[in-house]
Amino acid sequence: MERPRNVRITFEPYGKRVEVERGITIFEAVTKAGLGIRSECGGLGTCGKCKVRIKDPMSVSEITKVERNLLSPEELRGGLRLACQTCVLGDCRVYVPPESRIGERKILEVGFEQEVPLEPAVRKIHLMIPKPSLNDVRADYERMIDTLSRILEARVWQCEKFDEMRISCELLANAPRILREAEWDVTVVLRDEEILEIERGNTERENYGLAIDIGTSKIVVYLVNVNEGNVIGVSSIENPQLMFGEDIMSRLTFAMRSHENLSLLNKVLIDGINATIEEIALKSGVNREKIYEAVVVGNTAMHHLFLGIETRYLALSPYVPVVRDLLSVRAKEVGLKINKRGYVVTLPIIGGFVGADGVADLLATGLHKSNELSMLLDIGTNTEVFLGNKNEILSCSAASGPAFEGGHIKFGMKAVAGAIERVFIEPETYEVKYKTVREEKPVGLCGSAVIDVVAGLLRSGLIDVHGRIREKPEVSRIRKVGNEVEFVVAWREETGIDEDITVTQRDVREIQLAKAAIYTAQIILMKRKGIKPEDIKKIFIAGAFGSEISVKNAIFIGLLPEVPEERVKFVGNTAIAGAKMALISKKVRKESREVQKLVNYVELSLDPSFQKEFINATELPHRDLDRFPKVKDYLTKVRN
Amino acid sequence: MERPRNVRITFEPYGKRVEVERGITIFEAVTKAGLGIRSECGGLGTCGKCKVRIKDPMSVSEITKVERNLLSPEELRGGLRLACQTCVLGDCRVYVPPESRIGERKILEVGFEQEVPLEPAVRKIHLMIPKPSLNDVRADYERMIDTLSRILEARVWQCEKFDEMRISCELLANAPRILREAEWDVTVVLRDEEILEIERGNTERENYGLAIDIGTSKIVVYLVNVNEGNVIGVSSIENPQLMFGEDIMSRLTFAMRSHENLSLLNKVLIDGINATIEEIALKSGVNREKIYEAVVVGNTAMHHLFLGIETRYLALSPYVPVVRDLLSVRAKEVGLKINKRGYVVTLPIIGGFVGADGVADLLATGLHKSNELSMLLDIGTNTEVFLGNKNEILSCSAASGPAFEGGHIKFGMKAVAGAIERVFIEPETYEVKYKTVREEKPVGLCGSAVIDVVAGLLRSGLIDVHGRIREKPEVSRIRKVGNEVEFVVAWREETGIDEDITVTQRDVREIQLAKAAIYTAQIILMKRKGIKPEDIKKIFIAGAFGSEISVKNAIFIGLLPEVPEERVKFVGNTAIAGAKMALISKKVRKESREVQKLVNYVELSLDPSFQKEFINATELPHRDLDRFPKVKDYLTKVRN
Repeated sequence: MERPRNVRITFEPYGKRVEVERGITIFEAVTKAGLGIRSECGGLGTCGKCKVRIKDPMSVSEITKVERNLLSPEELRGGLRLACQTCVLGDCRVYVPPESRIGERKILEVGFEQEVPLEPAVRKIHLMIPKPSLNDVRADYERMIDTLSRILEARVWQCEKFDEMRISCELLANAPRILREAEWDVTVVLRDEEILEIERGNTERENYGLAIDIGTSKIVVYLVNVNEGNVIGVSSIENPQLMFGEDIMSRLTFAMRSHENLSLLNKVLIDGINATIEEIALKSGVNREKIYEAVVVGNTAMHHLFLGIETRYLALSPYVPVVRDLLSVRAKEVGLKINKRGYVVTLPIIGGFVGADGVADLLATGLHKSNELSMLLDIGTNTEVFLGNKNEILSCSAASGPAFEGGHIKFGMKAVAGAIERVFIEPETYEVKYKTVREEKPVGLCGSAVIDVVAGLLRSGLIDVHGRIREKPEVSRIRKVGNEVEFVVAWREETGIDEDITVTQRDVREIQLAKAAIYTAQIILMKRKGIKPEDIKKIFIAGAFGSEISVKNAIFIGLLPEVPEERVKFVGNTAIAGAKMALISKKVRKESREVQKLVNYVELSLDPSFQKEFINATELPHRDLDRFPKVKDYLTKVRN
Repeated sequence: MERPRNVRITFEPYGKRVEVERGITIFEAVTKAGLGIRSECGGLGTCGKCKVRIKDPMSVSEITKVERNLLSPEELRGGLRLACQTCVLGDCRVYVPPESRIGERKILEVGFEQEVPLEPAVRKIHLMIPKPSLNDVRADYERMIDTLSRILEARVWQCEKFDEMRISCELLANAPRILREAEWDVTVVLRDEEILEIERGNTERENYGLAIDIGTSKIVVYLVNVNEGNVIGVSSIENPQLMFGEDIMSRLTFAMRSHENLSLLNKVLIDGINATIEEIALKSGVNREKIYEAVVVGNTAMHHLFLGIETRYLALSPYVPVVRDLLSVRAKEVGLKINKRGYVVTLPIIGGFVGADGVADLLATGLHKSNELSMLLDIGTNTEVFLGNKNEILSCSAASGPAFEGGHIKFGMKAVAGAIERVFIEPETYEVKYKTVREEKPVGLCGSAVIDVVAGLLRSGLIDVHGRIREKPEVSRIRKVGNEVEFVVAWREETGIDEDITVTQRDVREIQLAKAAIYTAQIILMKRKGIKPEDIKKIFIAGAFGSEISVKNAIFIGLLPEVPEERVKFVGNTAIAGAKMALISKKVRKESREVQKLVNYVELSLDPSFQKEFINATELPHRDLDRFPKVKDYLTKVRN
């Protein structure tokens, strides 16, 4: 049989290039490229939404009946096609028009990670088993295991304990049929000592797993080829539990009211993840039944809710989790729709509100193996902070709120097309320059922009240390609407929403509270360790907005301590990156348990200085200006 | 929608009551009650054997066409119905008339066993766990495991791997509630590294398990306190699969016809065992939920049918089982109603038709550890023979038929009250002495008695070497009825059935075939090992009738080779004894896998001398009289 040759597709305007099997649809190729395309039918050819323009019409299949029905004659003449109907026959360039683009929400789906040796828990081994005969009356199972043992021995893969090999009764009951229908040519799916599945023929290459990061507000799923360690599909959704409250505490309170509520939170979460898995599987052309394992991370509350475990005691003093250890349970037990005998592994949690996502952050940054004293911040609705090195790590969690993700901000939004992501205020003229995501007309502000605005106002003397915006007649951008003062970032004529885009006094307060929470967490850990900011050799910043933030401005408003800027490194979504590392390497799973033991949890609210530190930190940059000597210098100059 | 209400059926004369779903047939209800009913068609409505009398005719469905065809007008008028045609609509009493009853026999429930160190797989450990506080915020699970570890370390129980401790997600979800309701005073149920249950308070003493022997015709269940190793309840039933054929081959043929048939054989078996478990639990006052493990043995076909595994390839050349190894699966997976997280362990099987029961026989007799060359016969509908010592064991299986258990014998019956179990025929006067079970009036003959009669007739010269009964005018006990000659064992006046009890010419033929099959099996194994009968230092005889047989007569008719009588030892039901040993000792489980490797299976039908040996062995005692020198001496004297 001829193997289909690969073709190269370039997606525009992304400039993303992907190599795929000849003959697959553009719809499938989009996913393989890690991009998204609008569709309501998932590629079934009924919605007509996945329009693309093919730049080399001779490199794709002919226009189908479906397309003639769903596209107008003008569209067809203009070279538009439906991605789900168009098969790629040769190298080509595909333009995705604005109306077909999704993922306009820019959830940061990728993260910095450490290189790890490929050693997935699930292995696929192709077997050619000798058929039974009167001279060879071994049982089906022993026959299979004997062949398997010989192959594994030949590959010199660690010391295998075949005596302990396990198989489910139900698979065993089907084994005789499968083996004979496949004429004894099968691929065995092995997870540690358990045989999870017997597939017909040689399917060694199709070995898939999932890495899942359950955040308080978003869920990211990676589909990974665990043989090769590469991500072949990415998908993300808002956490459907948002319906029951934006922050963790309100969900825990809801769960506490009745067992039904707890089950409901569990159910919507699992349903949401299943829908995401279905989508990613469809997009990538991978059968869900061929996914044998998922590694899941999330904060302690998400971890418990995912497993359907009681969360009552997380919310009540002394705030103890039910379980901290790494767990390995059947996917079926938690209701995850992958192979029916597949497994879900949850990485260990650290305690209180620092969960498995924190462990994954550490795994991905390698902080726990470092000699240098480093700090790691995973900024989100809850912000986890870690401080330490390979000898000991302190951790805590701060309820920073959603301001840095655009939540509770008047014109706040996620970092999607049209969101202003960077703002510069000219200190003399108060003129404003800004940059939007994908250079589109501004429609709102994302967290990094609000930080820039607050820093800019402070730098220009338009705001005082308490965060109060100063009204000045010569500054037309500052005005009072009703009772509230606000600063205009973009005038109505410039925006795509027929309105001025502003930062209000209340928005500034939100930012002050959020940055105070995060700064306090850092300073208390430093106190506990008895160190000063300059002792910290590296600060990793993880989180969904991470790569866009200005370090200078973050320090200027007192979100980060004053350290040399080059010590700060943005690492993106390290939670999912760490989960992926654990998915493809058993060594990393082992490491995750060691990481857990290395980390001590600090309950911030129990620290006697917490209250005072927090209040002092709400000032800009801080009540104790000596903690920010350079900012102090600058402000002193401006004031004089 | 209305849920079908349950109805109660009382089966008479057993006095057994069962609650079932309204609308099921009496045939199905019989199984649920753990009883049996005569049938040749398995409830298909073609044989007309499953007659019952309904005491409340208004509580069942109307008479069907099938019943009008298969029952006579008198029977219908007398209130007789077919169990498979009659659906239960309300509470009712059902009388099972004698001709429909199965399961009235004396099943040998105990067996010889080896003493083993108590080391059950399931352990219960009482814990007083420190409560959480602000100074001790360990997670519930870690808190429990820490306490557990300390206790186990103190007891110095082998090297435990706590890192690998497992727990089901569902138990974990309930753990916080259980722990707090019990005020942290709990007993943990541990099986290897898995926590199966958390019970309130100290329940260390209540640690129960089951040993289950699934025979072709009977099932025996032991309820065992695994802490102490003692049997606290015994129960047994006829194998409900008897409805689908008496012998293994007819059941395998039935199973082969469709997947539904296979499932049906599995279902009636599991239902029957569950009914037995329920009964034994009730009798012993033990909650089924407190039973955490069952060790199951049975021949290869029963083993596969119990697990719901395809049996097609056992019945077709080259006769390979699906699996031979020891299996450990969740009880739930096979449908066994013990604790929902409990386990079922099936001991390894040897191959072909020598199953886990054979392994248990060896464990119980210790043959596999002996220096002496020994032989073991487990006599039943299928007879397993083992020959060897600690260095190597040969095994085979002979289709001996049910004659020795009273089957296919005109007045044959199981060893129940009134069965003649011993017969002595005065060689000079031909007068007969006999002994019945419980000294009651004779109602039939059990296998041991038929052996005695054949031996007695041979000793008296009333039967020739070919098994032909000699008619002699002076012997009034020998007579011809129709075309068949028979020997009267008990005259009508003496019996409890208002009939003479006889052994017919056909009965003698049945015994000849059965003993020939068993002798051939023994002789072929001896040949393979190159030994003579006198080299065998011990012969163990296991089986349901074993303790009642006369060794002298067994040798005289050629069932056993001529060895000194004192070398023969009756060991009873060693299959269940071996299962019990494995239940209370992990060491024995390990041993069972070594036993399996030690035993080689010989397929008798493939032995070139099988045919000739079998035909020669049908003579009394054998065509080659020199194999039985003492019997030869005696017979020569009698003939002269």
